[in-house]
Amino acid sequence: MELYLDLLSPPCRAVFLFAKTLKIPFDFKHVELAEGQQYSEEFAKLSIVKKVPVLKDGDFVLTESTAILKYLARKCLVADHWFPADLRQQALVNEYSSWQHLNLRSHCSKVFLFKTLFPAIMGSEVSKEKMDIALEDLRHSLDLLEEKFLKDKLFLVSNKISLADVVAVVEVMQSQYNPKSKAEKRKLHSSQPTVLWKHSVIHLFDYSFCSGLGCAGRTAKAECLERSGEKGAWREAVSRSS
Amino acid sequence: MELYLDLLSPPCRAVFLFAKTLKIPFDFKHVELAEGQQYSEEFAKLSIVKKVPVLKDGDFVLTESTAILKYLARKCLVADHWFPADLRQQALVNEYSSWQHLNLRSHCSKVFLFKTLFPAIMGSEVSKEKMDIALEDLRHSLDLLEEKFLKDKLFLVSNKISLADVVAVVEVMQSQYNPKSKAEKRKLHSSQPTVLWKHSVIHLFDYSFCSGLGCAGRTAKAECLERSGEKGAWREAVSRSS
Repeated sequence: MELYLDLLSPPCRAVFLFAKTLKIPFDFKHVELAEGQQYSEEFAKLSIVKKVPVLKDGDFVLTESTAILKYLARKCLVADHWFPADLRQQALVNEYSSWQHLNLRSHCSKVFLFKTLFPAIMGSEVSKEKMDIALEDLRHSLDLLEEKFLKDKLFLVSNKISLADVVAVVEVMQSQYNPKSKAEKRKLHSSQPTVLWKHSVIHLFDYSFCSGLGCAGRTAKAECLERSGEKGAWREAVSRSS
Repeated sequence: MELYLDLLSPPCRAVFLFAKTLKIPFDFKHVELAEGQQYSEEFAKLSIVKKVPVLKDGDFVLTESTAILKYLARKCLVADHWFPADLRQQALVNEYSSWQHLNLRSHCSKVFLFKTLFPAIMGSEVSKEKMDIALEDLRHSLDLLEEKFLKDKLFLVSNKISLADVVAVVEVMQSQYNPKSKAEKRKLHSSQPTVLWKHSVIHLFDYSFCSGLGCAGRTAKAECLERSGEKGAWREAVSRSS
């Protein structure tokens, strides 16, 4: 099985993280987005959509990170809590992985674009007005992540970790990468999901994540550890979810 | 089982159409978006997201149309082709229902907003530049719908209809509603999915759709019939998919 990825992309990190965590063997095919390799003729033969991640399993080619995660979960018979067979639990994973596209994913991407990519490429800041709108949209999504999905549970769907958590974690990480000021950092942090959910990030990292991810991953891990307050408490979440 | 819907919304129409087509009994709860009923305190108790569709099955509440469709398919044991149990076929339904959010859904919604809602609410047209960008984005999505998903098959995932088709059909319908000029209409039509796929729309309508849908549905049906050219040919598609 081959996975075509660039770990700068959150959906790619979700697939990578999931496969590594679950010890699913795969050939890592690096598609360097910054060099436009996704637009090459060779890559277009694999996927006309010209985006990563892509899974190739024999003659079967699949795009879209959440579809790939569900495929891997079913094919590799991973522990049930990652993608539960139970009708309602599975529906809740599907609900989250549908909701996130036009919410957390869109808004985290925009904040990352405005905070990090835009200044790097254009050599200037986006307007305060645009940034404020992007941050407000992201805050609204983070509020819903907490109030609708997380509520009083340890993870987004139940008290056990699921692929929905992996999908969410990589987006929140990306939006936090390289914030331009402490004030902006605080604004974001004030509405982020609760401490217990942050522990799931750390739980995931502690499998195998950090080694492959570069500074985006390490920064997010350090920030999560710092913000979690009780540095030992995540172990409780881990023991309850494993 | 209760379904909270406003049939002006494409995702609501997908759920309604699917339930009606598969003869799944439900109580229709009308949430009138134009009157802001989704923002009422009463509705917020049901769903904090304040959007439709919502499914309520006993004490279980589910949002997101694609999650609801998959839940209904599994719970009501509908014919396999709607949401195949086969690993790869199911992955392709998941791939489409993930892809559509930031592609066909986003772009059809924007064209509908610019063509229909904006002039009705603001009393003026959007700029040509904005409209051209929206149409170009939509054309790109329609090209991918055809070249990646439909290809040489009768329906998006196989030669049998699946819930992916229902999700796509309602979006294409919406974008076609009330186009402002014949030229714009032609521009859109030139890159739309092939005749055979359009037959699936008609196939669906012929179950029970049209009666409940008002003019958006009837317009789309008439347009599809007109554009399909061979008005009898869809029956072949129906017989091969049922």
